[in-house]
Amino acid sequence: MKKDDCIFCKIANGEIPSSTLYEDDDFRIFLDLAPASKGHALIVPKEHFDNLYELSDEKASKALVLAKKTISKMTEALKCDGFNVLQNNNECAGQTVYHFHMHLIPRYKGDDVGLKWTPGENTQEERDEIVNKVRAI
Amino acid sequence: MKKDDCIFCKIANGEIPSSTLYEDDDFRIFLDLAPASKGHALIVPKEHFDNLYELSDEKASKALVLAKKTISKMTEALKCDGFNVLQNNNECAGQTVYHFHMHLIPRYKGDDVGLKWTPGENTQEERDEIVNKVRAI
Repeated sequence: MKKDDCIFCKIANGEIPSSTLYEDDDFRIFLDLAPASKGHALIVPKEHFDNLYELSDEKASKALVLAKKTISKMTEALKCDGFNVLQNNNECAGQTVYHFHMHLIPRYKGDDVGLKWTPGENTQEERDEIVNKVRAI
Repeated sequence: MKKDDCIFCKIANGEIPSSTLYEDDDFRIFLDLAPASKGHALIVPKEHFDNLYELSDEKASKALVLAKKTISKMTEALKCDGFNVLQNNNECAGQTVYHFHMHLIPRYKGDDVGLKWTPGENTQEERDEIVNKVRAI
């Protein structure tokens, strides 16, 4: 199902043009217009899902296989040195468009793309508490 | 196949204990000891693959389905407000352990987890050049 006011529905289904690297019945992969690095691309399903919480298992089982094939191809084409695959869910996690998408971000030695975090700490007791909560669901 | 000197082979296969949230024949999901946020977990296959470039299609087709189920469960258990799913390939992209893993990073409104980038720019000509290179592979 498409959602009327969703820009990624329009791009994925070809109603708005994009720089398309790949397309099949389920997905379109196109270049981000505000790239973190040269070649930054997005994998977007043609069907509407708000984010990973909503994505169907069928599409989820295809998306990472597609990511794998695409980063291999792009690494060869762009001569980049690595890749981040990033998928954000909800505003606090940096999601700006509410249509599931995975970022494929080419990395080049010495680039200044961020995507870092400060490693924290936890105790065995804290970890046990989390494990118990999650396993209880 | 396991790799002798790989710490994630040992953790995934239970030779080194971990705070395990989930385990099946193919994967283990356990808490990161240096978390970006409370509940930061890793999805790791029991079989050794250096990263997404090497991951089998079979495991790739399962990993994101597992990520989806796990973030839903963890969001309920931890009352977090969102999630980043991040997978790094090669040193320049922040990969430190060379055994495929996906980071599941819970996000809480107002937290100070980084994972941002500075949006860049590109021209239609630059995008066309990239599309042509990638589609030629």
